[in-house]
Amino acid sequence: MFSRKTAIVTMSDLGSRGLREDRSGQALAERLGAEGYDVCSRTVIPDDYDRIKEVLIELCDTEGAALIVTTGGTGVSPRDVTPDATVSVIEKSVPGLAEAMRAASMQKTPHAMISRAVAGIRGKTLIINLPGSPKGAIENLEAILAALPHALDKIQGDPSDCAQG
Amino acid sequence: MFSRKTAIVTMSDLGSRGLREDRSGQALAERLGAEGYDVCSRTVIPDDYDRIKEVLIELCDTEGAALIVTTGGTGVSPRDVTPDATVSVIEKSVPGLAEAMRAASMQKTPHAMISRAVAGIRGKTLIINLPGSPKGAIENLEAILAALPHALDKIQGDPSDCAQG
Amino acid sequence: MFSRKTAIVTMSDLGSRGLREDRSGQALAERLGAEGYDVCSRTVIPDDYDRIKEVLIELCDTEGAALIVTTGGTGVSPRDVTPDATVSVIEKSVPGLAEAMRAASMQKTPHAMISRAVAGIRGKTLIINLPGSPKGAIENLEAILAALPHALDKIQGDPSDCAQG
Repeated sequence: MFSRKTAIVTMSDLGSRGLREDRSGQALAERLGAEGYDVCSRTVIPDDYDRIKEVLIELCDTEGAALIVTTGGTGVSPRDVTPDATVSVIEKSVPGLAEAMRAASMQKTPHAMISRAVAGIRGKTLIINLPGSPKGAIENLEAILAALPHALDKIQGDPSDCAQG
Repeated sequence: MFSRKTAIVTMSDLGSRGLREDRSGQALAERLGAEGYDVCSRTVIPDDYDRIKEVLIELCDTEGAALIVTTGGTGVSPRDVTPDATVSVIEKSVPGLAEAMRAASMQKTPHAMISRAVAGIRGKTLIINLPGSPKGAIENLEAILAALPHALDKIQGDPSDCAQG
Repeated sequence: MFSRKTAIVTMSDLGSRGLREDRSGQALAERLGAEGYDVCSRTVIPDDYDRIKEVLIELCDTEGAALIVTTGGTGVSPRDVTPDATVSVIEKSVPGLAEAMRAASMQKTPHAMISRAVAGIRGKTLIINLPGSPKGAIENLEAILAALPHALDKIQGDPSDCAQG
């Protein structure tokens, strides 16, 4: 009943110039497809703040994605600006998704602490940042998969009642 | 010595029109009363950003509440705006209270990840968002109860020293 | 290869007037020195929003610190403004460091929930807030020590690849 239209956006300076295969985007497309998400679009763009904003806004407002999953640019390097660009386009923050991903990743490596990934809502689209490595991206996605269907339904206006129980 | 004056605010479109019993507000009033909090006020208002702001500001600035506990409107539905309205009135964020609530809830259900609840301080008042279901509201409250008395004392200016030990 | 130049800033109204020994700053200097950090500067200033901003900016922009560790002013008292001053000077937030510190501290005491500590990046400097007690400051530091070397390298532009694996 509710849309599962999904866009995957890979942030990669090298990838956007055709100098690196988009293995993270590919891994995410396969996994999300297997989970029943309708992966309609894949994009590889450079780690550029304005370009990221532009692509996210178009996928939300024009393409009508229900879910945008980004991979890459979540670290602390000078070129890592994905979370900052994402914050600038979302209308509502969903901090628990980012907290859950980091808490799960920290079980595996302390480097997970420096993922600056965010999650939030623009209109009827949920945007989630994932790290840039295929392994990290899939691990982070798995930490939140169980929460996504209900989240997407609610974002799209599912009127069923949450205040009972 | 320090105030435990507490206000409970329920966000509910149905409840504010008298079409639903305020079971969460009732459960919170009973539990907080049993814990020694002085529950002075209960309000049921619609999920309206401006109305929520107005009520929170009045409870802080005019009524002088030491603690405001909200229930409802913390999710990802289009009408869920409690955290956003709360952020707009607080002067200081207290992210650890929200993190602790979500970490405790996630032990029970992955849906806890999409609670957007925040906590923060306006003047001498601590404002805490809780979810809308009676069960969720009490569970979240229990996760932070042990931290509240010291927090309220400090917010009200308790000069005892934290930097020893 | 990458800088480990470290500044320690203690927020303390009493300490800045010479009325209290800076035990937290001392403990942090010893521990960070033992871990190989190059502690070049120690400063004790009052809990004053504008003064904190001024000192942090100078340590980042003029002194070229790779790491600034603050101690004190992270609580909920009216005079506690370190996180707010820090947020006002950072360009990128690194929420996972603060989350990891609170998650570790909450294992020991529920009071850890009300630490409002933040971490973030200004230019090529990582700024991390720690609590004011010597014990709390060291405990929080220990929770993130394993993530710091890689973080500092990346902030300073280490081009080694994160997107493999």
